[in-house]
Amino acid sequence: MEVQEQLHQYKENQKDRGRLLISCPDQPGIVAAVSQFLYKFNANIMDSNQHSTNPEGGTFFIRIEFECPDLANRKEELKSQFHTIADKFSMNWDLSLVQELKRTAIFVSKQLHCLRELLWEWQSGDMMTEIALVISNHEEARGVVESLNIPFYYIPATRETRQESEEQQLQLLKEYQIDLIVLARYMQILTSDFVQAYERKIINIHHSFLPAFVGAKPYERAYERGVKLIGATSHYVTNDLDEGPIIEQDVMRVNHRDHVQDLKKIGASIERSVLTRAVKWHLEDRILVHENKTIVF
Amino acid sequence: MEVQEQLHQYKENQKDRGRLLISCPDQPGIVAAVSQFLYKFNANIMDSNQHSTNPEGGTFFIRIEFECPDLANRKEELKSQFHTIADKFSMNWDLSLVQELKRTAIFVSKQLHCLRELLWEWQSGDMMTEIALVISNHEEARGVVESLNIPFYYIPATRETRQESEEQQLQLLKEYQIDLIVLARYMQILTSDFVQAYERKIINIHHSFLPAFVGAKPYERAYERGVKLIGATSHYVTNDLDEGPIIEQDVMRVNHRDHVQDLKKIGASIERSVLTRAVKWHLEDRILVHENKTIVF
Amino acid sequence: MEVQEQLHQYKENQKDRGRLLISCPDQPGIVAAVSQFLYKFNANIMDSNQHSTNPEGGTFFIRIEFECPDLANRKEELKSQFHTIADKFSMNWDLSLVQELKRTAIFVSKQLHCLRELLWEWQSGDMMTEIALVISNHEEARGVVESLNIPFYYIPATRETRQESEEQQLQLLKEYQIDLIVLARYMQILTSDFVQAYERKIINIHHSFLPAFVGAKPYERAYERGVKLIGATSHYVTNDLDEGPIIEQDVMRVNHRDHVQDLKKIGASIERSVLTRAVKWHLEDRILVHENKTIVF
Amino acid sequence: MEVQEQLHQYKENQKDRGRLLISCPDQPGIVAAVSQFLYKFNANIMDSNQHSTNPEGGTFFIRIEFECPDLANRKEELKSQFHTIADKFSMNWDLSLVQELKRTAIFVSKQLHCLRELLWEWQSGDMMTEIALVISNHEEARGVVESLNIPFYYIPATRETRQESEEQQLQLLKEYQIDLIVLARYMQILTSDFVQAYERKIINIHHSFLPAFVGAKPYERAYERGVKLIGATSHYVTNDLDEGPIIEQDVMRVNHRDHVQDLKKIGASIERSVLTRAVKWHLEDRILVHENKTIVF
Repeated sequence: MEVQEQLHQYKENQKDRGRLLISCPDQPGIVAAVSQFLYKFNANIMDSNQHSTNPEGGTFFIRIEFECPDLANRKEELKSQFHTIADKFSMNWDLSLVQELKRTAIFVSKQLHCLRELLWEWQSGDMMTEIALVISNHEEARGVVESLNIPFYYIPATRETRQESEEQQLQLLKEYQIDLIVLARYMQILTSDFVQAYERKIINIHHSFLPAFVGAKPYERAYERGVKLIGATSHYVTNDLDEGPIIEQDVMRVNHRDHVQDLKKIGASIERSVLTRAVKWHLEDRILVHENKTIVF
Repeated sequence: MEVQEQLHQYKENQKDRGRLLISCPDQPGIVAAVSQFLYKFNANIMDSNQHSTNPEGGTFFIRIEFECPDLANRKEELKSQFHTIADKFSMNWDLSLVQELKRTAIFVSKQLHCLRELLWEWQSGDMMTEIALVISNHEEARGVVESLNIPFYYIPATRETRQESEEQQLQLLKEYQIDLIVLARYMQILTSDFVQAYERKIINIHHSFLPAFVGAKPYERAYERGVKLIGATSHYVTNDLDEGPIIEQDVMRVNHRDHVQDLKKIGASIERSVLTRAVKWHLEDRILVHENKTIVF
Repeated sequence: MEVQEQLHQYKENQKDRGRLLISCPDQPGIVAAVSQFLYKFNANIMDSNQHSTNPEGGTFFIRIEFECPDLANRKEELKSQFHTIADKFSMNWDLSLVQELKRTAIFVSKQLHCLRELLWEWQSGDMMTEIALVISNHEEARGVVESLNIPFYYIPATRETRQESEEQQLQLLKEYQIDLIVLARYMQILTSDFVQAYERKIINIHHSFLPAFVGAKPYERAYERGVKLIGATSHYVTNDLDEGPIIEQDVMRVNHRDHVQDLKKIGASIERSVLTRAVKWHLEDRILVHENKTIVF
Repeated sequence: MEVQEQLHQYKENQKDRGRLLISCPDQPGIVAAVSQFLYKFNANIMDSNQHSTNPEGGTFFIRIEFECPDLANRKEELKSQFHTIADKFSMNWDLSLVQELKRTAIFVSKQLHCLRELLWEWQSGDMMTEIALVISNHEEARGVVESLNIPFYYIPATRETRQESEEQQLQLLKEYQIDLIVLARYMQILTSDFVQAYERKIINIHHSFLPAFVGAKPYERAYERGVKLIGATSHYVTNDLDEGPIIEQDVMRVNHRDHVQDLKKIGASIERSVLTRAVKWHLEDRILVHENKTIVF
């Protein structure tokens, strides 16, 4: 089955499915008010996760997935009526339809393993998004991308031409109405302006178990240090290099027989799975950020 | 700090903390009704987990931990008022106070590693229960048990004397008002009557990754089969040997160098942690059973 | 870099590299005799692994990787001179050149994730073999296989036509001089004759943690049983279904939220990595079989 | 069975068992020479592991475990005759008898989980060493230590009195002829002189996945950073804080629900197993150090 057909069918199946994400100061009565509200609309709560940073005077987070008859047509009505509750509890909130798929841009350089994994999951119907375009500062990825009928843009990027490159990139992101940028081993640092334009909408994969080996050449440094496990970390990009909120991490065992080249190969498979999990969670609105940490529901 | 002092302090800290466990046919409005009910009592929901086996016509499960002022005195009031909701939604439910610690009996034979781990966690204040007594068909455990001022009963058990032994055991369990029985490598099979008397209240640790190697000598059989991982499984005891609802499992890697003796040593550490996790979850009312499977919140 | 170019370069780099695999009754003097022999040929031992099933009267296994100047031309000389030692110690042995790549056939049905992973590793230069052909009882894999210029053969297979299909398959395997057959989720059972023709040369991936869930529909049965971990197992195929020597296994955690469909998706990623590791180890001559168990050096 | 009886029996069983550890510049002929030498003494190689940092011009490491009739009486003869080979290949080497158990001192502060795990393994006959004494800057451990008839020394330690305390400690270590010092969560920094006196003979457990969170309060910092896995690292102590050669590491998964206190509890179980593995490997002479990295055979 073709990708577009799969996505179409998914949207059909999920057309009454909505997601409500809320964060607000903790106090009694929030769940009662929200669930009462949904019940009034005949919505059935399918899944619900909540968390309090600190029950006394902390922040409360909740993610609710619900089914509501005729949701697409009633969305605006729900939103407008929810304002009363939201105001009462000083909520940050978002109500979205599952069928409104996010539009994703993937940035990649020469190493394609993360890109390939993402495309594969997407092809298999396991990553529900529109992959709108791929941008690279190299030509290596063009073949695999274009074979899937995804637009590929080659934009050379060097420290000197960064501003110019980013202007082109931002222009494309706007044009393609991008909601999420995935840096799938994109080996360029983004400017502060770029990052701010897509705050909490850029996911990077760093090839180490952060905060160990921040910055360049983590496998070489892991080898030098003689660690017994290597890892990978996916995180939202902020303006502090490799310091953004961590979404997911994993590790694998290595030993004294493994040279840098082996660490890179072992690491590649960790990077693939860690980035894929993080991207899926983002697409499913499972991630909330609080004080540079993530809550993953 | 002494164990009893720790438990006492815990109960003081948790005196307004309650847990509500519900299972019922799924339908819209359950969460709204329950959260509204709690709100009326000024209860703040501290943690909530839910699950539906099948959103259309399936079973709905929820576990709510809440804080309610003066809970100990108002518990009966809550319970009696909750009946209306419970009836409306055809609920199976239980409302308990965290400070009402469960009373645990540990059964053990000659191998003490699981017993030791449980006692250690308990001593460290990480397992909130009254360990009321230890029963064994051997004398090996007496020293460590009595050194902690826990009553130790030696009740010999053989296939021939099973009925007699169990009568003694059941007498003790009744006398000590036991809520939970932990079989910490107790190498005797319980009769059907015994199991029924404590349905879903007996946790066993089986020294294999079930359903592989049901029954006797699992490490020997794992060695024979040449598996590359060995495991342990904790489950509720039913009358089908090693077929009860699985609570927790884990595995560790082994290789061709490991003889049966090595598998047993490696396995012992898996057994310790798997059983401990299962017991803690039970004590915290995190486990619901549905069609011979567990839901662990 | 193209696959064939990578393989060519690898063979060039490894042209003086040999592997010696030995199993024989254990006794003092084996290592001394073998290492003395290699030293006489100016061979440098690069890697060596050994194992004794039981030091007193058991079986001894050793795998040596060595570099010997001008090995390709001297191979026959080494082999003929090694006979004296081999006879003295009653050895089963094999001396092979790393540059003589094994020729692999992949069998696949409708699900392509294992095939894709193998092809990917191969393309990336991480699986050193000639993938000579792919055989399938379905057409799904044709596209991806032929795009890599690998011959693809569609041979329908049903219980009724098994003999006929296998004749065609065996004809192709012979024609393409196949050393290794990988069943990458090939959903047909092979006849006893077929298996015997390629004894210890057929690697299968079974989608469960064997010996749990032997046979059909393991994910469905894992779901029914309520296991907390699911696994995959790669093994050599024998005439006892799913009973052959286990090469590698791994597991991942699941929970009550995961339906059969989720288990299949999670399991697919375990299958991919477990099969790939097993195939690589076989290609590197790391696996010895002893009493239905594997020794993996 | 009592500990001393177990140790005695082990020494009896292993009285002909020896270990040879060698490191030297790599060149052809090393294995041949060493195995020939052992064969002359009728020694049977039971286990052998080797490693080359770089086959061309690198360092070669080998660990051989062998059985030699009447080894205790012939040890000096072996050693004196081995010198010829050792000189020819410029070897660093050590030949030891398995029955000559290392003598261990454990240093501990207030937290006893690592100490308890070590003592437990030792009691169970799974850690072959003489635990000669325990030194602590607190009194918490006295009970458990003295109950096993191990001498316990309370030596207060503060930054101001460090020199004085270390003098007392060094005096005791000398008196008890200590071979290995285990810092089982000993919360004091050792002076450079102390460390040099026991180079590569002091094993520490650091409660983080090094090199992340070097220094104080790693769990607090892990919590702040929002990592998704926490770890522990055992390493040889050098004069660079937490920078010594890493012996073993492991991690466990945590999530946004885990507060610092939870991280500490989860971490404690990682610390216990990681430290125990490292100590066992050291006691079995499995660890070689090369350029601030360990080779663990």
